[in-house]
Amino acid sequence: MAGLVERARDGQPRAVARLISLVENDSPVLREVAALLARGGGGAHRERVDGAAQVVGLTGSPGVGKSTSTNALVAALRAAGKRVGVLAVDPSSPFSGGALLGDRVRMQDHATDDGVFIRSMASRGQLGGLSAAVPQALRVLDAAGCDVVLVETVGVGQAEVEIASLADTTVLVVAPGFGDGIQAAKAGIIEIADVFVVNKADRDGADQVVRELRHMQSLGGRHSAAGAWRPPIVKTVAARGEGVDDVLAAIEKHRGWLAEHGELDRRRQARAAAEIEAITLGTVKLRFTSVHGSAALDDAAGRVVAGETDPYTAADELVAAL
Amino acid sequence: MAGLVERARDGQPRAVARLISLVENDSPVLREVAALLARGGGGAHRERVDGAAQVVGLTGSPGVGKSTSTNALVAALRAAGKRVGVLAVDPSSPFSGGALLGDRVRMQDHATDDGVFIRSMASRGQLGGLSAAVPQALRVLDAAGCDVVLVETVGVGQAEVEIASLADTTVLVVAPGFGDGIQAAKAGIIEIADVFVVNKADRDGADQVVRELRHMQSLGGRHSAAGAWRPPIVKTVAARGEGVDDVLAAIEKHRGWLAEHGELDRRRQARAAAEIEAITLGTVKLRFTSVHGSAALDDAAGRVVAGETDPYTAADELVAAL
Repeated sequence: MAGLVERARDGQPRAVARLISLVENDSPVLREVAALLARGGGGAHRERVDGAAQVVGLTGSPGVGKSTSTNALVAALRAAGKRVGVLAVDPSSPFSGGALLGDRVRMQDHATDDGVFIRSMASRGQLGGLSAAVPQALRVLDAAGCDVVLVETVGVGQAEVEIASLADTTVLVVAPGFGDGIQAAKAGIIEIADVFVVNKADRDGADQVVRELRHMQSLGGRHSAAGAWRPPIVKTVAARGEGVDDVLAAIEKHRGWLAEHGELDRRRQARAAAEIEAITLGTVKLRFTSVHGSAALDDAAGRVVAGETDPYTAADELVAAL
Repeated sequence: MAGLVERARDGQPRAVARLISLVENDSPVLREVAALLARGGGGAHRERVDGAAQVVGLTGSPGVGKSTSTNALVAALRAAGKRVGVLAVDPSSPFSGGALLGDRVRMQDHATDDGVFIRSMASRGQLGGLSAAVPQALRVLDAAGCDVVLVETVGVGQAEVEIASLADTTVLVVAPGFGDGIQAAKAGIIEIADVFVVNKADRDGADQVVRELRHMQSLGGRHSAAGAWRPPIVKTVAARGEGVDDVLAAIEKHRGWLAEHGELDRRRQARAAAEIEAITLGTVKLRFTSVHGSAALDDAAGRVVAGETDPYTAADELVAAL
């Protein structure tokens, strides 16, 4: 393991891929890997300190062009000489394992560039789920010398909000014709977005979307306080690369604001706390299963269905037996 | 509490609303309510047995017309003399509390009909989250004599898949122009849908959506086994009520299939198991917080950020102290 971690620190793509697979599959050696990564240290990017990677979350409704935006951002970051990691996270795929994301096909522009690491992750079986797995994968990509890691999520559900909230900067991508304004507000994503991107801005309705976003911002929330960050609204046509540099500039500006206000540390602290909590609950869940087996839960469920007990009493009995 | 539960069993809207509020707010009296509900018993609908309510989940991307479909289904069910409950669940709204759902406005056609109970629920602070709260709310609506409860979710994320999986029958609503085929497949929702509804079927592209769904079905999955349920695809224009009776017929047919194959019991059993597990983990989480306080977690997170420890070791220490 120590050798593998060293090779990942040297930025060797296969070692990085291997480590992220260990994270995704919740491998038993993951504890050892985590300990080795925590120890910090060298590699080919010795001038860097661990934790230097900037984490940018991209989220938005299906179809608005998140993948295209990610692709365009990677190209722009590479042009600026940055090493880039991409984590395409599909929290809503308990069944298909995220295979449909097809990132390797989608991102083939960058497939042969060893300054880009691309991985998709689904939500299969990890101890602590994606709340634990994503921070760990971020740590691997950070150790591998990535300057920026883009975390792209599918959809706009609760899980996406949680993952987006793990980022230093969260970018919400919207597009005309997706009813995104009100829908994003429903999803609570409006409230965690640091940068709004109105993609497909060459289409009818783009200005309307911008107006809706402005209106929602004017309704207040956390951005209305004095000194608060007011999320900029950037128009792009990601498929043609238009406006992408403006997005990067907005992200950079936000990073400056974060650093200036001590928010960068606060967000990293919150990310670690979420990770530890997720692992803790995952551990308890594992213990629950190993103590009770699924039979005890089935039995309790049967008694609830039959009206012999209520779910609280059943849960109390199971907890008491832990 | 006993009086309140009795009034809910008599179908009094205010008592039902009050009980669901207790569920949503994770009230301390909830255990007592759950025990009273589990005890079963009379009310104005004494001929019914508890657990008779048919639970139908409606899910799909924002904008496809889920709310309109729900509204049309309620009207059709009322015309057939059924008592109907509607739970509009917004799992992705940790911040805005679901207020933007605006159900009371949206569903005002049925606001004065005392055979319809309408409630929206967001994911605030319940012990065990929506996985526990939704089954409890279903139990209240069941006790109140609802023949059918429609559970409508916002969006197509992991949480929506989980909630949809609590239903007896899950209806996936799609519409032309939403790229729904591939997106729903990404979300794993294709695999849990029992009935597909192609809404806005008067628009261009509706037949294309039907073909895409057929193609996905032909790719196999759980529906390809002999004797398996093959989800029908129903075209609707919900805004004009077209095709809504066909949707009800498909739901009814699926219920027959469930009963015939012992699946109805299996799904109810699974719902109760999910509920108990959610309450159990919620209890552990509460205990975790009360034992450690947030300071211990913050401290651990700080040490992880500083590279002094790794998240697994930190989690182990916290679990050991429980």
